[in-house]
Order: sequence, then C-alpha cells, then structure tokens
Amino acid sequence: MSESPTIVEAWDPSIELNRRAGDLFQHAVSSSLELRSEVVNIGGATLLDAGSGSNAKSRPGPLGSLDAGVVLAKLCLGNMARVELVAAESDMLVDQAVMVRTDRPVEACLGGQYAGWPLSVGNYFAMASGPMRMLRGREEMLGHLGLSSTDRDSQTVAVGVLESDQLPGEEVIASIAEDCGIGTERLRLAIAPSTSIAGSVQVVARSIETALHKLHALDFDVTKVISGTGIAPLPPPAKPGDTIGGIGRTNDAMLYGAKVTVWVDADDASIDQVAAKVPSNTSADYGQPFAKIFKQYDYDFYRVDPMLFSPAVVTMVSLRSGRTWRCGGLNRDVLAVSFGMDT
Amino acid sequence: MSESPTIVEAWDPSIELNRRAGDLFQHAVSSSLELRSEVVNIGGATLLDAGSGSNAKSRPGPLGSLDAGVVLAKLCLGNMARVELVAAESDMLVDQAVMVRTDRPVEACLGGQYAGWPLSVGNYFAMASGPMRMLRGREEMLGHLGLSSTDRDSQTVAVGVLESDQLPGEEVIASIAEDCGIGTERLRLAIAPSTSIAGSVQVVARSIETALHKLHALDFDVTKVISGTGIAPLPPPAKPGDTIGGIGRTNDAMLYGAKVTVWVDADDASIDQVAAKVPSNTSADYGQPFAKIFKQYDYDFYRVDPMLFSPAVVTMVSLRSGRTWRCGGLNRDVLAVSFGMDT
Amino acid sequence: MSESPTIVEAWDPSIELNRRAGDLFQHAVSSSLELRSEVVNIGGATLLDAGSGSNAKSRPGPLGSLDAGVVLAKLCLGNMARVELVAAESDMLVDQAVMVRTDRPVEACLGGQYAGWPLSVGNYFAMASGPMRMLRGREEMLGHLGLSSTDRDSQTVAVGVLESDQLPGEEVIASIAEDCGIGTERLRLAIAPSTSIAGSVQVVARSIETALHKLHALDFDVTKVISGTGIAPLPPPAKPGDTIGGIGRTNDAMLYGAKVTVWVDADDASIDQVAAKVPSNTSADYGQPFAKIFKQYDYDFYRVDPMLFSPAVVTMVSLRSGRTWRCGGLNRDVLAVSFGMDT
Repeated sequence: MSESPTIVEAWDPSIELNRRAGDLFQHAVSSSLELRSEVVNIGGATLLDAGSGSNAKSRPGPLGSLDAGVVLAKLCLGNMARVELVAAESDMLVDQAVMVRTDRPVEACLGGQYAGWPLSVGNYFAMASGPMRMLRGREEMLGHLGLSSTDRDSQTVAVGVLESDQLPGEEVIASIAEDCGIGTERLRLAIAPSTSIAGSVQVVARSIETALHKLHALDFDVTKVISGTGIAPLPPPAKPGDTIGGIGRTNDAMLYGAKVTVWVDADDASIDQVAAKVPSNTSADYGQPFAKIFKQYDYDFYRVDPMLFSPAVVTMVSLRSGRTWRCGGLNRDVLAVSFGMDT
Repeated sequence: MSESPTIVEAWDPSIELNRRAGDLFQHAVSSSLELRSEVVNIGGATLLDAGSGSNAKSRPGPLGSLDAGVVLAKLCLGNMARVELVAAESDMLVDQAVMVRTDRPVEACLGGQYAGWPLSVGNYFAMASGPMRMLRGREEMLGHLGLSSTDRDSQTVAVGVLESDQLPGEEVIASIAEDCGIGTERLRLAIAPSTSIAGSVQVVARSIETALHKLHALDFDVTKVISGTGIAPLPPPAKPGDTIGGIGRTNDAMLYGAKVTVWVDADDASIDQVAAKVPSNTSADYGQPFAKIFKQYDYDFYRVDPMLFSPAVVTMVSLRSGRTWRCGGLNRDVLAVSFGMDT
Repeated sequence: MSESPTIVEAWDPSIELNRRAGDLFQHAVSSSLELRSEVVNIGGATLLDAGSGSNAKSRPGPLGSLDAGVVLAKLCLGNMARVELVAAESDMLVDQAVMVRTDRPVEACLGGQYAGWPLSVGNYFAMASGPMRMLRGREEMLGHLGLSSTDRDSQTVAVGVLESDQLPGEEVIASIAEDCGIGTERLRLAIAPSTSIAGSVQVVARSIETALHKLHALDFDVTKVISGTGIAPLPPPAKPGDTIGGIGRTNDAMLYGAKVTVWVDADDASIDQVAAKVPSNTSADYGQPFAKIFKQYDYDFYRVDPMLFSPAVVTMVSLRSGRTWRCGGLNRDVLAVSFGMDT
C-alpha cells in the first residue's frame, strides 16, 4: 500500500481565522441593508454598526437584527463555527435559543471569541473579542495555548467585535490597529451593545467558550477538547443604556440556561477531576440573577467568584473510554426573574 | 472623527422583494427534479407546479415535496426570511414544525406573504400571495404601509404563489400580468393547494405574518416591529380535493399550535394595549377546530371573528424598556382532533 | 391554454447520486483541515480518513469531527438529503440529535445510504454504503427497486463510505473498483468507525433508511414513500476498538431513540397492514440494549430478529386519505443503559 502525502498543511490560526472572518465581514458589508446595520469608515478602518446608540440614518428604528447577531457571533469565532437560532426547550423560558457548534473549539472560542481584551483608550471603553486578539498577542491564555502571533502576514486583515453602545473615535481606531501591528485600513470592527438584538445574540453564542474558559481555569488541558456544541436561551435585550441589565441577562442565559457538550481526547482521571466542578452551580455565588450578584460586589468583576462563569449544564464525552459525565441543571426560576417573565 | 457616508441606500421593497424572489424562482426551476415539481409555460408566464391536481408526467406519484414547500414559503416572503423544517416540541403533536425568522417582518410578511389577493378570473379561483401584490398595489393595507408601488422597474419580474389545486389558464395569466402592470413573460408563479405537502409547509410558514396582521387589526403600528421568529407544527395534509380540510388543519396549526416572538421598538403603553389581545384564545370563536367553526358559519369567512386569526402564543419584547409580554398557550387537544391523531 | 414540455428529464439515480456525492467529496477534500480529516491516495483512489485508527499526522488528537460526520452522512445519501445536528428533546437523553430529511427517500436512503455491501477482501472487512452500491448492482433489493445500473457513464465517479477503523489496502481498492466497473482513479471513499465522532453521526443519520428498510421487509411498496424526516439522538462514541459497543450504541439510538415520519402515496388498507408493525417495539428482541441482544446470539446478526431494526417511533401520513398512523415510543431507560448515562 502506497500513500501519497496528505494535502493538509500546517496552519496559523491567527492568519486563518482573521482571513475567514474578513471574508465574512466583506459579505456582511454588502448585505448591511438586510442586517439593519450601517457601514462606517472611521480613521481608515471599516466598521459595521449593528446597534450603537444612534438610530439608523437611512431608515427608522434602532440598528441591528437577529441576523446581524449571528454574523457578529461568527466574526468573533473567526467563522470557524456554526451559529444558528433554533427553537428553545421549555425550561429555557423563551422560545428562541442560540446554538453553536465547532470542531475547532480552542482556536475559534479561545483564540477568537473570548472577550479577553478590555479596550480602554481615553474615555472610550469596550469589551473586545475576535481573532484580532491573536495578532495583538498580549493575553496570557493565548500565549499559553500557542495562539499569539507575531508573524503578521502582509495580506491579513484584523477582525474584532466591540461590545459597546458607542462608536469608537479615530484615536481608538489608531490604538487598536497599532496594538495589532497593522494599518487602520486593514482593521474590520463590528459593534453592538449587549442591550441590542444583535448584541444579545452575539453574547449568548458564547456557551462553548464559557465552558472552555472554565475548564482552563480548572487546569484542564483544553487542547484535548476536539469538538463542542452549545445551546443557550436568547434573552430579551435589556433597556438601552442599562449596561448592567444587559450583562445580567446575557450572563444568566449562560449560568442558568446554557447546555454544552464537549468531546475530549483525555484520560478518565483528568476528566473525573473537573467534570463535577465545571457547571455554574458549584460556585458559592450561584442562585441569584447575575445583576444582583454584581451589585452585591459593588460592580467589581474581580470580587465575583470566577468559578461562577460557566454553563448551567456541561456534558463531557471521552473519546478514549467511551464514558460520559453530565453535570449541572437548568434553573428556570432564576431565568424568569432575570428575563422579567413569568415561569 | 470623520465618517464617510453609509453605503446603505434607500430601497423599494416592491422591486427588491420581487427581484430576490425572482432569483430564487430561477434556482427552483433548475432544481425542479429534486423539488418533485414541474415547470410549465402558460401564456408566456413561467409556473412551478408543486402540487396541482394532475400527477407528474415524468415520474410516478403526486407533485410536490417538503423542499418545494420551503421554496414556496420563501417566494411568498420575497426571500427576505429564513424558513426551515425543524423538530417540533411534544405539545405540537407532530414531529416537524416550520420555523420562520425575519428582520424585515413588515416588508416580507405583509408586503409579500399575506394572501391578500383573492384571485378570481372566470371560473378560476385561488388565494394569491407574494411580492407581486405590491406591484398590483390595490390592497388597502399595502397602501397604508407604503408598500404599494406604481414605479414598475422595467427589469422587475413579478413573483407570486397561488394556493389552488388547478393550474390557471392563459386568460388568468393575462389578467394577473395586467394587474401587476407587466408583460406575462415577466410573471413567475408557484402553485400548490393546502392539501399537498408543499402547500401545507407554505401555509404554516405564516406564523409571523398572522401575528402582524392581527396586530395591524388591533391598530398597533406594525412598522415598529423590527424582527420576528415563529414556529408552527406541520400538519398532515388533508385529503386531496378536501379544501375545507386543508384550510382547517393549516389554520389550526396557527390558532392552536404556533408560537411567535416579535421584537418591537414601541413604548410600553402601546404594547400593553394589545399584548393580551393578540393570541387566538381571546376570540369568542376559539376552542374548536377551524373546519367546524367555518362550517358553523356556512363557510362564510366574513362571519368568522377576524380576531380568531392569530398564533396560539405571542411574545412581544420591547426594545425600549426591556420588558416582555407573553400571552396565550398551545392547545394539544384541538390539534389532535384537527390532525386526526391521538393526543 | 398551451403548455410547453416540462424541462424535467428522465434521470438515472446511479449516475445522479454518484455525481452529487462526488461534488461534495471534492469540496470535503478541500476543507479537510476544518473536518479534522486527512486525504490519502491508495492504489489510485482518493480516501477521506475521518477516524481510522491512526492519529492524524499533521496535528494532535484523533481524526474526525462532527462536521465530518455530517459530510459522511450526505455522501452516503448521494447528497440528496439534508442532514443537520439539532438540539435533542429530553427523552433522547443527550443534548444533540441528527435530523435528516429527504424528498427522494428511496433513491437516497436505499439506493445510497443502506449499508448493503459487506465488503470482505482478504483480511479486510468493512460495512460499505453509498451510491457506489448502485454501480456494483449486486444487491437483490436494488434490483427489485430498479436501482441497479449497468450503464456506467464514462464520467461517473463512484462514491462510498466505509465503516471501519482501518484503511483498506491496494488490493481492497482494486476489488471495489472492479466490482463497480470503474478505474480506481474514479473511486472516492470516506472512512470512519462507529466508535468515532464522525462515524457516530453518520450512522445515526440512518433513521429514515431504517424505517424504509423495515417497510420493505414488511412487503410495503417503498416506492410509494414520497418524503421523509427523521431524528435520532447522537450517542457518545464507544471506546475506540470496541466495535460491538459502537454498533450497540448507534443501533440503540435508532431502536429506542429515533422518530421518523414518512409521507406516502398509498391506499389506507396497505398502510393499515404495516403501520403498527414498523416500530422496533413489535419485535420479540425489543427491550434490551442492542449489544446485549447481540451477545446473547453469539454476535451472529442472522439470529437477531430482523424486525428489530427499526426506529422507535414511526408516523405514516397518507397523501391520499389525509389519515395519520403514529406508532411506537421512545425508551429513555434503555438509552441510559446503552449510553452509560443517568436517566
């Protein structure tokens, strides 16, 4: 038996995910009408505005849409995952859920989607995510996972998503581009606050990411996660301007409403050590709507138990032993309080 | 901060939706084999037959398919919505449901999908829907919503869907084309009765449209509806020729089985006034299978309470206040009687 | 009224399905990176390895992925069906299910997907499926359904899927190509064992096929089946190398977890004769995990009741009478034992 060499080559996730997200961004720009979004140029960079505070200029009503939310989610993920709006199960309280699936969970969710860049320039603040973070390369986790790139291909665009209700100014754009080591003309940013339709979709598409990040925090080797699926309820957007409310509902969709399954290539002992600890219900802070917990800690993220940030239900499937660990549970009552709905 | 002008331009829904539906129609023609449908030319117009009474000439079995139903639904909607067959929840009694989602609900559902054209030419009768209605421009609601077009671009095709088990003749085709102000060679029609597979899919894809129409009837300003999702069970098609049965089951899928969510940019007072009245269960005629109600009124549509025509569950989400109104409920018992199934 | 001839022409399923699957195969080769799969050339044929025993050469971790499983399922089906990973209902025990839908059930499921070719060459054994079976043309059922082709178009590729954890050698490849009457350079094979991620997806995409095969075994004329949908839970893959475990769990996903609906153009009497017999629960062997039943018969397939192989729930919808027959039920308890999970 003779085998020809495989045609698969080594790949650089920072280049590949930015390239893929860049292609999707281009497509989104050309369908901005359908996305109820607007394309603006700021300081040389191209921005897709899917929900910043200002209303649309060319039509009535607020900016953004469900479809734009799906696009933002895929941009974060370097377009290496499927994201879909699906029917929710009754314990999720609302009728829609966001389902995400990827066979490149570490690259897509941690290299791309994790909002690990607290962007702060002058008076401007936004949580930044997306594959541009790998070009910046300053996050410890990215370095640990080998996802920091210093090799910035001259053709690469840098793609990011900003969670904010304000468009950034030229000095913010210049700062982001400099951090990524590219010219502003190669920067592509999509923007929406968590209180908008698009923002709420984009944030609750983070169910697998949240599970991976918690696994990483528990010292589980996340590079052993081969595939993942996640589903989380789509909460009603909080009142525009109510940032705490927006953060609260989207976090509660994870903590009390999300179900994640990961397929792992790891030995049973290493799974046994973490499986029961992964879901949110093992945290001492579990049981209240997130906005209430947050207030109780005077809105200081660093005082919230980091072990709280995790899906409600996490299932780990071993590809080595055939065993399955399923832990946690949905919490309809907290979702009802958080979403302002009857149970 | 300098901003370039947005690239979004004013758009004419009547042109845009007919153009999009025309592109989809062309694709459907080229995959008619997979759709179990036949393409026929009548009086210069092109028709996609997905279930008229006559069996297929080129293969055994009745015309039409699930896929053809999805295509017909999208044609009605001017291809400005997603339509998918999904798994149904157990209270929907059957295992399949039709899920629809749009970020252009007024244009897609009322400008396109609403069956507001009772086509009657000689002995031929059909309920007509689709974006060709905007070119015709005679419906009061379309005028009210600014969706009537008299500006018929010379490149535009007119796309419609006929609910009927008979193909129209040349004189019917000529009449439709004349009403739309175009030549017959630019007319594209798809056809299926509600008693066929494709027809049943196409009709129960009307969940958002039904909610919008009811909101409009309640004097709610539907242009405030930014996005919508809907899901309704796919009923077993009624016996071919049993038009009342077909209308009955597909209506019951709405009245007793559909769940719709709309995201609205309106103040709480205006939502409060209508939210509880939107679902079907507020009608005095609620509670019996539609075919029975219809019979009771001697098959006179105008005697049926117009407030009956609405989804079973309607959720309204305010994009201004962050509040949610959820009213109505599924009715498994009526669905069982209507669909001829055990509960 | 004048009608032009339809543009639909007679088609040869063996040519059409192999062509469609060949196009999809080509696409899969070019996205092998995302599919976590490897492309190898053996004896002139092209293989997509989505889970054979050997680990990937170009990256860590086992071969295969959820996406690769969907691709393998579509290859089997001659790409004449939709296959999707969806959220499972709670009685399916796991959170993911594989949904399949086709309007060409006989061609796609029996002509393509059915694993009717027990490939045995030298020491090599694999269950072979896919549209290449129609080119081989030796299965009695294919002949009975008019799906055996001896007219091998010179442009046709032959596409198959092998359920095995070992790559075939050159003599196996030569034998397959010879049986299909083509040169090895036109042979396209995808491979994964049922104990892999991709293999588990591919096998449980067989819900409609299983129902059709059972109907055929009950002497129902399956050419009367116009459309079908099916959904089955995605079981955790059994331990690599545990072939019985892999067969057990994927079979249990069908026998105790799958729900299928078929739309049939047949008279009520012919449906009445079979409807209650179609689901698995009418078999005397029903009620135990399949691996246990199999062991009890000393792993001799021919001693297992052939009537066992069927979905848990089968719904038949008559397109002639409008009647519906729904029989069977999910069995959460057996799924829990089989999948190694708590109920």
